[in-house]
Amino acid sequence: MNFADRLLDAIEKKQNPAVVGLDPRLEQIPSFIKSEMVKKYGQNFEAAGACFFEFNRIIIDSVHDIVPAVKPQSAFYEQYGQFGVRAFDATVKYAKKKGLITIDDAKRGDIGTTSEAYARAILGDVNLFDKQVLSLDFDCVTVNPYLGSDGVLPFIEQCKKHGKGIFVLVKTSNKSSGELQDLFIDHGAQLLHSKDKSKKEVTVVKAERVYELMARLVQKLGEGTEGIRGYRSIGAVVGATYPDEAKVLRKLMPKSIFLVPGFGAQGGGADDTIPCFNKDGFGAIVNNSRGIIFAYEKHGSENHFDLAARNAALKMKEDLNNSLKKAKIIGW
Amino acid sequence: MNFADRLLDAIEKKQNPAVVGLDPRLEQIPSFIKSEMVKKYGQNFEAAGACFFEFNRIIIDSVHDIVPAVKPQSAFYEQYGQFGVRAFDATVKYAKKKGLITIDDAKRGDIGTTSEAYARAILGDVNLFDKQVLSLDFDCVTVNPYLGSDGVLPFIEQCKKHGKGIFVLVKTSNKSSGELQDLFIDHGAQLLHSKDKSKKEVTVVKAERVYELMARLVQKLGEGTEGIRGYRSIGAVVGATYPDEAKVLRKLMPKSIFLVPGFGAQGGGADDTIPCFNKDGFGAIVNNSRGIIFAYEKHGSENHFDLAARNAALKMKEDLNNSLKKAKIIGW
Repeated sequence: MNFADRLLDAIEKKQNPAVVGLDPRLEQIPSFIKSEMVKKYGQNFEAAGACFFEFNRIIIDSVHDIVPAVKPQSAFYEQYGQFGVRAFDATVKYAKKKGLITIDDAKRGDIGTTSEAYARAILGDVNLFDKQVLSLDFDCVTVNPYLGSDGVLPFIEQCKKHGKGIFVLVKTSNKSSGELQDLFIDHGAQLLHSKDKSKKEVTVVKAERVYELMARLVQKLGEGTEGIRGYRSIGAVVGATYPDEAKVLRKLMPKSIFLVPGFGAQGGGADDTIPCFNKDGFGAIVNNSRGIIFAYEKHGSENHFDLAARNAALKMKEDLNNSLKKAKIIGW
Repeated sequence: MNFADRLLDAIEKKQNPAVVGLDPRLEQIPSFIKSEMVKKYGQNFEAAGACFFEFNRIIIDSVHDIVPAVKPQSAFYEQYGQFGVRAFDATVKYAKKKGLITIDDAKRGDIGTTSEAYARAILGDVNLFDKQVLSLDFDCVTVNPYLGSDGVLPFIEQCKKHGKGIFVLVKTSNKSSGELQDLFIDHGAQLLHSKDKSKKEVTVVKAERVYELMARLVQKLGEGTEGIRGYRSIGAVVGATYPDEAKVLRKLMPKSIFLVPGFGAQGGGADDTIPCFNKDGFGAIVNNSRGIIFAYEKHGSENHFDLAARNAALKMKEDLNNSLKKAKIIGW
């Protein structure tokens, strides 16, 4: 089944366009989990990995009926080598068992043959002696477009083969994203310097920012990935911290789903995410990591971190739905 | 010790500015290794990981006295989950034991806090309950700059703390790299659209391509990372497939070391790498992956893949040295 359809079905079912980011940090894992794992394995990487999975399992149990998707950030797991990756893998499998869509926020991107290896590792099938088998088997992954289309296409190939999706980084949520992404492209200078001397006339092209150019790339590469709901499996990352930019991007990629980071700890509020949605209430899925999984640090105690996470997830659902209603966006 | 100094010492010692890319593909691993591992572990991911490490170990034994560095590409290892990462980790440790500089070609880049997790995982120290310990402990890593400086700075912090290095993607070797990297930035339009209305005058800025802008970023961020030889630990990735662009980039980043992919299978020859070097013979390290590790497919038999790899590495060393000599670049 098409990835976009699966994701939208899940959003509709939970009446909630939110994702919980599973970005565990050992220093913030409740001490009762740490004691248990250190006792079992010692003070080593195996114990760290076991803490991550146990923490995630409890969070997933606590929020799986509220949110449609979870997004583990691979960086945090990679810190603990093979044992971190074991926890990462176990987390995906457990989340899927609980009916959640899984997003690998890995921001991968490389030359063609290497991107193919990443795409196979994360979404698709890998060579295992004489057969092809699924590996991490995430539902979707974030992709960095700095290397151009031949770094992105191998991911799209695996998407089409396995009913998966990608979110291409277009306008990221961080402060310095504008250093490259906001700059204007001079298409006139481009033509003047072109090696193709037949193109002598410089066409006047409307000033276009890098993120707009990337949006056009996403729009072009996503052709033919529409599901029965009309949305595409090739989406974009658009930060909640940039609502004005989101407005422009929503128009450039009308049928792409936006993965929206930057809500909560990074400063974006529910109202800031509204420009990422279409009028049908679809088209965006909003991430919150620290604000949910470590909610106990602000409201509650570490012994009840699961309850704090559940309450934070419910609060986020309510906030998003209120903002959508206020903006007269027809919900589900 | 400063990373740039360590790398240049190694290049000088081996009289060879070459890197062997360790990008194993299960279908190309000699069958005697595969039979042994399948017999030992079964037809599973553990066997695949064991094949990768065994293959790498033999390659490293065969070339460690010829080349200064090896570059495992993490994508290939990630295909086999925790067992792939175990092989990846074992490869780094074995290569270091054999006196080689290790380059993680992971092309990571994320928002600040996540980039910090990657930087710690690959180069630095991670939190392990009440202590900080080294994890993968690579000597350097490739970094994607699409998210701007706050995605790069956490890597530089770990570099400074642990004597490590990074290579920022500036002009990559692949065909579609130009889709974004070659475009001209319109700094005039940038100023016109600036929210800072005090900047009313539009300064005429020389037309600048995205890769030149990124080079200026590398030049700025690398300040203060010079070693005793004068080179910096913050380098750049510049493809051997783009010698004209390399000429420009060499001037923009005079004291940065270039990691040069694209030699061999991707089409770049030894002469194409020359613009990446400075007149002192330093400033570049040229990668070859498939052309060395799978040289047996063209010259030799799989039973003697180590000899074929050694011969290919010797031939590459000779080719690079001949091209440097021809270009009247004073060697070591």
